[in-house]
Amino acid sequence: MISDTTVVDRENWLAQGEGPAPGEVWLVGAGPGDPGLLTRRAATALERADIVFHDALSGRAVLRLIHPRAERVDVGKRRGDAPVRQAEINRRLVAAALAGKRVVRLKGGDPFLFGRGFEEAEALDKADIPWRVVPGVSAGLAAPAAAGFPLTHRGVARRVTFVTGHDAEGEVPGPGTLVAFMALARLDALVLAQLAEGRDPATPVAIIAAASTPQQVVIRTTLGRCTLEARRLALPTPALVVVGEVAALPRRRPAEAPARASALA
Amino acid sequence: MISDTTVVDRENWLAQGEGPAPGEVWLVGAGPGDPGLLTRRAATALERADIVFHDALSGRAVLRLIHPRAERVDVGKRRGDAPVRQAEINRRLVAAALAGKRVVRLKGGDPFLFGRGFEEAEALDKADIPWRVVPGVSAGLAAPAAAGFPLTHRGVARRVTFVTGHDAEGEVPGPGTLVAFMALARLDALVLAQLAEGRDPATPVAIIAAASTPQQVVIRTTLGRCTLEARRLALPTPALVVVGEVAALPRRRPAEAPARASALA
Repeated sequence: MISDTTVVDRENWLAQGEGPAPGEVWLVGAGPGDPGLLTRRAATALERADIVFHDALSGRAVLRLIHPRAERVDVGKRRGDAPVRQAEINRRLVAAALAGKRVVRLKGGDPFLFGRGFEEAEALDKADIPWRVVPGVSAGLAAPAAAGFPLTHRGVARRVTFVTGHDAEGEVPGPGTLVAFMALARLDALVLAQLAEGRDPATPVAIIAAASTPQQVVIRTTLGRCTLEARRLALPTPALVVVGEVAALPRRRPAEAPARASALA
Repeated sequence: MISDTTVVDRENWLAQGEGPAPGEVWLVGAGPGDPGLLTRRAATALERADIVFHDALSGRAVLRLIHPRAERVDVGKRRGDAPVRQAEINRRLVAAALAGKRVVRLKGGDPFLFGRGFEEAEALDKADIPWRVVPGVSAGLAAPAAAGFPLTHRGVARRVTFVTGHDAEGEVPGPGTLVAFMALARLDALVLAQLAEGRDPATPVAIIAAASTPQQVVIRTTLGRCTLEARRLALPTPALVVVGEVAALPRRRPAEAPARASALA
């Protein structure tokens, strides 16, 4: 351990291989609806799963890629009863995994951006069920592209904020999550700007280097310490910096794999 | 036309089918690096292209999916000479398309989120070259998932902002782009919050309904008029609302297709 607040983590939570193992759950992004915008790994997972729990936003053309012998469960949440239904979804995911099935939880767009996917991951953790994630093309990116315009453009917009209609009134709890691309070279400036905006130096920060590759490494630290730690560690590129409480959400190691979070000095 | 400032558009700028036609350019997202996170349509495009221009962020494992007979051109921009190189990339894309090749421009992550993809689209428009886009899984979504945490989580974070290291100092020109999911039901509140934050009522707004599906329809209007227009038009769901100058970037109809932007009353 480098300091009390910094951990080096080499665990990769992205799903690998040809579909979930028996007793494992994959949280899979379905993309915006067009089956061509499904990822290759998501398509393989739909071919191999024993059971697929899908929501109302997973397009019909995407659902056709599910193997005919697989069980399909529509757990699309209807307006007004979301809290109850989420607990029920969690319960059914756990039950299917405990029955030894290869389980896919298919969610429109990306499972970890307004998808409530991590609530399901927490429920799986509590039940000692291994899970992995397959990110998807978010409608937040695909819809503007489909309309023929970009989210950022030189001299026009260099910053994008994603919200939901529920936050329309501005009743946002806390400052939210900041994701900075290509930020390592100017990490000092980013930290100073965040502190100037009133962020606590103890705010969690994750630096994710070479994400999704065999060289992936994650540094979990704080806003106050991240510049120092990034300088001390030789990190592969590219690196993404995430500032916000989500970077410190508790993660339990999967039961079947030995803990690989290392504490390197 | 509903008003002077509102247009209904049914054009879909997402690439369709089995790869670019001869003389056409596809702007393709390569995802974060893991070839399993490439979209199905991007993979097909790499198999069918005559020539692929790729950047330094397109992972090696992704590049292996390019057909062996295709020409590969590494146009990865080196630090410090980006402006010159971008003009050269634009020139080479145009030249390849004019030579009748099936052209893929492969960009790490998503081409329209910090990818400068629309600069290339503008250059293609000027040269009368048809183009389409294949959105990709952004590292901004995939890297946190790979590290095992979500971008949003109930009670923790309900808002995400993407920036680049260049904006680290807070020198951001303008308020940037706002993307609101599931916002139609609370569009009044969203508009009021944006006006309260100082946004001009003339700020461009796009409402993109049923994006990437055959039912896709885009309403281009302004912050001041969008609530009225959304009420007057029966829009399919889900719908995404984009507030910002990017929503009014000029789009030229492709030369080979008749203009399909309709002006419905």
